[in-house]
Amino acid sequence: MNKKFFETLTEDNCVLAMIDHQTGLMVGVRDFDQASIQANIQGLCELATTMHIPSIITASMPEGPNGPVMPEIFEALPEANYVPRAGEVNAWDSEEFVKAIKATGKKKIIMAGIVTDVCLMFPAIAAVEAGFDVYAVIDASGTWNKTVQEASIHRMNQAGVKISSWASVLAEIMKDWRSEKAMELGQILAKHTSYKWVVQSFMAQQKG
Amino acid sequence: MNKKFFETLTEDNCVLAMIDHQTGLMVGVRDFDQASIQANIQGLCELATTMHIPSIITASMPEGPNGPVMPEIFEALPEANYVPRAGEVNAWDSEEFVKAIKATGKKKIIMAGIVTDVCLMFPAIAAVEAGFDVYAVIDASGTWNKTVQEASIHRMNQAGVKISSWASVLAEIMKDWRSEKAMELGQILAKHTSYKWVVQSFMAQQKG
Amino acid sequence: MNKKFFETLTEDNCVLAMIDHQTGLMVGVRDFDQASIQANIQGLCELATTMHIPSIITASMPEGPNGPVMPEIFEALPEANYVPRAGEVNAWDSEEFVKAIKATGKKKIIMAGIVTDVCLMFPAIAAVEAGFDVYAVIDASGTWNKTVQEASIHRMNQAGVKISSWASVLAEIMKDWRSEKAMELGQILAKHTSYKWVVQSFMAQQKG
Amino acid sequence: MNKKFFETLTEDNCVLAMIDHQTGLMVGVRDFDQASIQANIQGLCELATTMHIPSIITASMPEGPNGPVMPEIFEALPEANYVPRAGEVNAWDSEEFVKAIKATGKKKIIMAGIVTDVCLMFPAIAAVEAGFDVYAVIDASGTWNKTVQEASIHRMNQAGVKISSWASVLAEIMKDWRSEKAMELGQILAKHTSYKWVVQSFMAQQKG
Amino acid sequence: MNKKFFETLTEDNCVLAMIDHQTGLMVGVRDFDQASIQANIQGLCELATTMHIPSIITASMPEGPNGPVMPEIFEALPEANYVPRAGEVNAWDSEEFVKAIKATGKKKIIMAGIVTDVCLMFPAIAAVEAGFDVYAVIDASGTWNKTVQEASIHRMNQAGVKISSWASVLAEIMKDWRSEKAMELGQILAKHTSYKWVVQSFMAQQKG
Amino acid sequence: MNKKFFETLTEDNCVLAMIDHQTGLMVGVRDFDQASIQANIQGLCELATTMHIPSIITASMPEGPNGPVMPEIFEALPEANYVPRAGEVNAWDSEEFVKAIKATGKKKIIMAGIVTDVCLMFPAIAAVEAGFDVYAVIDASGTWNKTVQEASIHRMNQAGVKISSWASVLAEIMKDWRSEKAMELGQILAKHTSYKWVVQSFMAQQKG
Amino acid sequence: MNKKFFETLTEDNCVLAMIDHQTGLMVGVRDFDQASIQANIQGLCELATTMHIPSIITASMPEGPNGPVMPEIFEALPEANYVPRAGEVNAWDSEEFVKAIKATGKKKIIMAGIVTDVCLMFPAIAAVEAGFDVYAVIDASGTWNKTVQEASIHRMNQAGVKISSWASVLAEIMKDWRSEKAMELGQILAKHTSYKWVVQSFMAQQKG
Amino acid sequence: MNKKFFETLTEDNCVLAMIDHQTGLMVGVRDFDQASIQANIQGLCELATTMHIPSIITASMPEGPNGPVMPEIFEALPEANYVPRAGEVNAWDSEEFVKAIKATGKKKIIMAGIVTDVCLMFPAIAAVEAGFDVYAVIDASGTWNKTVQEASIHRMNQAGVKISSWASVLAEIMKDWRSEKAMELGQILAKHTSYKWVVQSFMAQQKG
Repeated sequence: MNKKFFETLTEDNCVLAMIDHQTGLMVGVRDFDQASIQANIQGLCELATTMHIPSIITASMPEGPNGPVMPEIFEALPEANYVPRAGEVNAWDSEEFVKAIKATGKKKIIMAGIVTDVCLMFPAIAAVEAGFDVYAVIDASGTWNKTVQEASIHRMNQAGVKISSWASVLAEIMKDWRSEKAMELGQILAKHTSYKWVVQSFMAQQKG
Repeated sequence: MNKKFFETLTEDNCVLAMIDHQTGLMVGVRDFDQASIQANIQGLCELATTMHIPSIITASMPEGPNGPVMPEIFEALPEANYVPRAGEVNAWDSEEFVKAIKATGKKKIIMAGIVTDVCLMFPAIAAVEAGFDVYAVIDASGTWNKTVQEASIHRMNQAGVKISSWASVLAEIMKDWRSEKAMELGQILAKHTSYKWVVQSFMAQQKG
Repeated sequence: MNKKFFETLTEDNCVLAMIDHQTGLMVGVRDFDQASIQANIQGLCELATTMHIPSIITASMPEGPNGPVMPEIFEALPEANYVPRAGEVNAWDSEEFVKAIKATGKKKIIMAGIVTDVCLMFPAIAAVEAGFDVYAVIDASGTWNKTVQEASIHRMNQAGVKISSWASVLAEIMKDWRSEKAMELGQILAKHTSYKWVVQSFMAQQKG
Repeated sequence: MNKKFFETLTEDNCVLAMIDHQTGLMVGVRDFDQASIQANIQGLCELATTMHIPSIITASMPEGPNGPVMPEIFEALPEANYVPRAGEVNAWDSEEFVKAIKATGKKKIIMAGIVTDVCLMFPAIAAVEAGFDVYAVIDASGTWNKTVQEASIHRMNQAGVKISSWASVLAEIMKDWRSEKAMELGQILAKHTSYKWVVQSFMAQQKG
Repeated sequence: MNKKFFETLTEDNCVLAMIDHQTGLMVGVRDFDQASIQANIQGLCELATTMHIPSIITASMPEGPNGPVMPEIFEALPEANYVPRAGEVNAWDSEEFVKAIKATGKKKIIMAGIVTDVCLMFPAIAAVEAGFDVYAVIDASGTWNKTVQEASIHRMNQAGVKISSWASVLAEIMKDWRSEKAMELGQILAKHTSYKWVVQSFMAQQKG
Repeated sequence: MNKKFFETLTEDNCVLAMIDHQTGLMVGVRDFDQASIQANIQGLCELATTMHIPSIITASMPEGPNGPVMPEIFEALPEANYVPRAGEVNAWDSEEFVKAIKATGKKKIIMAGIVTDVCLMFPAIAAVEAGFDVYAVIDASGTWNKTVQEASIHRMNQAGVKISSWASVLAEIMKDWRSEKAMELGQILAKHTSYKWVVQSFMAQQKG
Repeated sequence: MNKKFFETLTEDNCVLAMIDHQTGLMVGVRDFDQASIQANIQGLCELATTMHIPSIITASMPEGPNGPVMPEIFEALPEANYVPRAGEVNAWDSEEFVKAIKATGKKKIIMAGIVTDVCLMFPAIAAVEAGFDVYAVIDASGTWNKTVQEASIHRMNQAGVKISSWASVLAEIMKDWRSEKAMELGQILAKHTSYKWVVQSFMAQQKG
Repeated sequence: MNKKFFETLTEDNCVLAMIDHQTGLMVGVRDFDQASIQANIQGLCELATTMHIPSIITASMPEGPNGPVMPEIFEALPEANYVPRAGEVNAWDSEEFVKAIKATGKKKIIMAGIVTDVCLMFPAIAAVEAGFDVYAVIDASGTWNKTVQEASIHRMNQAGVKISSWASVLAEIMKDWRSEKAMELGQILAKHTSYKWVVQSFMAQQKG
């Protein structure tokens, strides 16, 4: 395995791509509980905004049955570049999307998509082929059932994609609890996981 | 079965009791995903506020390891009566709690508690004995594992408690989509379930 | 338990009520695989048509986000009475729906609804109170998650509703494989279950 | 339901019966993880010792393949009455066992047994018939698989047995966190559940 | 609950009915692993033969796709009365079947059937109505999926059927390890469960 | 990894092989719900027909207990080449089958088979060895249980087979929603997944 | 991957090693149902005997708590070489065991062991290092829980072991249904899987 | 794969790193039952102490909400080197931690951490990059849910980390039941698994 594989993710060397998290696709997700996947997606986006990671939102024919991108993503990524696609299934087939990625000059891509086996898997593998180091955030992505998720994990892993979770991406970028934005990141983590209750118990005692 | 059993829940004949949803107990919940149970709890409280259903929040020694009641509940129930308990395990053993319930004059109690097998089950059964009609909201309550949840369902059912879900409580009170508050209730339901995506797809098209 | 409880379901003593199987609600079902619940629903409707069981289809505000009743139901129940509701959550609150049920003169109701904890549970319990014998077809109904299904089963069971499956309803009505319509019913059962493969293996050998 | 059903469990009105928790039967338990059921069993026994609840340990032919009672039970219940049985499958068929129960003069029995569908279920139902109020502690009992546990829950529930969990039994007896033994009971609960970590976080801060 | 409910099952007061365990139905069972349900069925039949419990095997049109009764049952119940049915779905509708049951003069029936929601549930409920005390052996029966099993358990329980497991039926009849046939029954239990390994370890040491 | 691995699947560079989806094997599938796997199989075949992808259907001794290929496959693939095998377990051992594959001149094979661990896995690995790029469609294949599916995924993955789902194969070939056949493919996807309800809600509004 | 990896398993190029299937370890298996794993083990051994595949049975201190090798293995492998080990945990550390393997002159080893993460995994990896091609039969092996099974699959896969199922090993060796022993192998497969019912239905019709 | 990969773990060639098993993180673990993961952690630590394997305990800001390292670890590893970290998320970023590892001179690291996807995964991958051979003990580590565990297993496996279980680590180091410390290790294994009951049955008979 080459050196690049082991290089750490930082806010300076990556771009976030949120692919096809559209209302008509969200309803089909069955490998995660709906409340959980929404929390994971929001956490991932808030991380990017907090760390000023360049972000691209794309959608597959949002005026059709797939519906619009879930509004929570636009709210959490107010400065993202939005690239609706005219018809390309694989976002990597969209010149505009790839140009947006390349324009950031980053060599690592944090990717999430719905459905996992199409909207995440195709561009993830294509980006690896194009020389990028891809973090597929499996729990901010979703699909028809657990078996399809597992099949996608195996195929992406085989192609060299890194299978990730949103919390591990956050933690890799945070790097140190003494860093400037660490407290903000800690709050994002707490807001969307059971860690919230731990922090609240702690705070109550600090005051108490 | 007597007539009362079949009487419908309305905003005028019930009181909500939120029992021991404290940060130190929330972390122990394993029969629900954390994001889901939080969504369920918030939905249930928002329903009560919207419909002006009298509400009582109680806590078991919140200054100890159980920690404070999760702040989301106070936010969602700004006018609730808060009854911290000095030590009574079963909220129904607290004179102040029972007085608060009785002061509302209602004969139906919507109850949720953490943990299900103690904080919900004991007052639910005691209230049935005292002549109340109790709706135990199983998905706004949580406990150590699925088997303990099942055991509690069987014992409460045997004692005459009605096993409920937060969405069914909301729907029973809404009663008619043409009622004054129906749209507000519909939004609460959507906000905390996958119904949100259905509504958003619909709205996008209405505008589109 | 009274005599009526043990009386057998026949094509002559029952009516079928299909409640709120609307496209915007179907997408929310997570206690069954989508292909399975659709098969179950179709099988139940085809049974009614084959046996000339009077049938009522109702929908909750089908022009709104709930969407239209799934077309498969209209196709499978071409002679059903369709009662869209203006706003009543509980179909039993709709005068027109109850009138349609009562007009059949039957004392047993086969009911299925989406979601189970609202659209099935409320009218099922109300019908029991009104003196009907209700078969709640749990696998032609669906809801948010397995726990909500379980809660609904417990509450309906407690109220005297009979928890059923579509295949058992079909078999109870078929009664005898030598009856006039038995072969047709057997084909419906086979079409929607793995029994299909058993029959096909058998037929292949008969011919072979 | 009669009054007795609603009477609260106290350290003064009950006896604990630990039935056939033998090493050769423990290995067959598959409805609980081994570490969990052992923790539950120990917690239940420690509760009895702390509250001076009279206790009876019985075993089915411990010199045969069933093996000896797990030593953890003798350690946790040093003052228990031990009644090895010569051959009776149902402990309630053992005169000596029933005499030991009756000698305590208590009308409520907390029972746990391995396997659930035999060693717990038979004496639980027999004791109800004999006029006792039985708490079947389902998570300090174990059996071959989850379905057998479920069948046993339904049959015991039908016969009037109360399906319980060890933590709910502890909490019902504790009654008030200000009672004399409450802190000891709280420590037992913490020792055998994830509540331990909550207490340790709390204590660390108190000191810190 | 009346006295009869609490009366113990003995080899003298019961009859076994094995209903429709046919090869074409066995392949459809999905609430149990195939190896397990076969072991459970064999164990139940061997128990009856060992204890000389009168037994009736019935089949639903065995010359059709349902296929023949699995040969293991005929082997394990060599003296059973075999009643193939010409077409009755519910075995209780077969005069010959009911006559065979009644000819034994027993008031308790141990029943198992495939599929649970039809072949077991219908005759179980009918027999309760006819005044029999029915033990529905849920793990020697099988059906399309777990939810259908659960629905059937709830409906049979509601009608007064006792939900049982094959091992608990064996143990209830064995009654005492010192009884004449206890060792034979113990071997049947061991043969079809993990208890086998416990016994073999024990025996090896006895010899060793 | 070589270039070929990253080359996209198109209707022009692949052949579909449907291996041993016979009625006597379908009944043994337990890693998928029967209704789901049938939907997946039909969807995969309809895709091939729509896109004029050359297709081969093979069967292992269809005149024996394995039974005939499920008729749904012949219906969905009316122009497929049918190669019944005289006895070869591994379809790749059949000269006729391999010849049929090679005659298409394609270097990518979309494969599905029942059972996964034999009928899919053996030819998939053999084809990789022979220089083909194989897409093993795991959800249009089925086997005895989930663990066997997992073992097969690991072994195929290790050998260089691409683990796929039928929907991802469809989407990879569709490539662009503006392509000639995209709407037909979208309808196939909708017909066999919950996406159907999303499309129907959308269409209803378009008309409404 | 080298050529050897793709070479087919035949009765002439392999040896079977059954490692530590001892009664005291069998009781600890929780990643498989007990009836299933026993069926799998028996099927695998019967295959070897039928095909005259040289076989080695080894045991880890069978006179201690691990107990004797399950007698079913000796019965199914009457000509196997039995190598009890004095203390080596990893069978590959036993000179006698390795000598026995090497004496067969085969380069492929079919291995199963209990527990998977020790008794199977260590010799499987060691044998790969020693140049053998190892088939780890995951469903004739068993361990403490599913997660430990998964960890072992990943580690063995990483080391180059082939993860297999007993049925796929049987089918790979059978190769052709027209081969001399194919009918015998087919019967072994049927005897231990649900395929039995398919065959019995078929046979009944052939006669009928 | 190089030679080092196959080298056996011994007490002389490894160091144990216990990373961030802090009370505030333990409560978040949901991929294991709490009683089980605690047993696994204790067993792993006791192994190291018994075999004099150098050990390092590290913690992430233990004075904050994460809380102190669980006291069971300090008790089980009395001679471990304790390295609280000032803020580094990845323990491998802590100079002091890496120095402690390197000071032992060992080239193999047994690692466990909570949460798996951060506290275990980051240092495991970094250590592999630094030339160490890492055993990631997946069952003495824990995280938010099963899917995150699976994602972490795939990513660590891809990077060359060995996915392990605590029992397999113990067994690899024990190597031979005749070795000096084997009996002590056997007792540790028994203490924390169901093997305990097997040993106790055995011992009882030895004495008996």
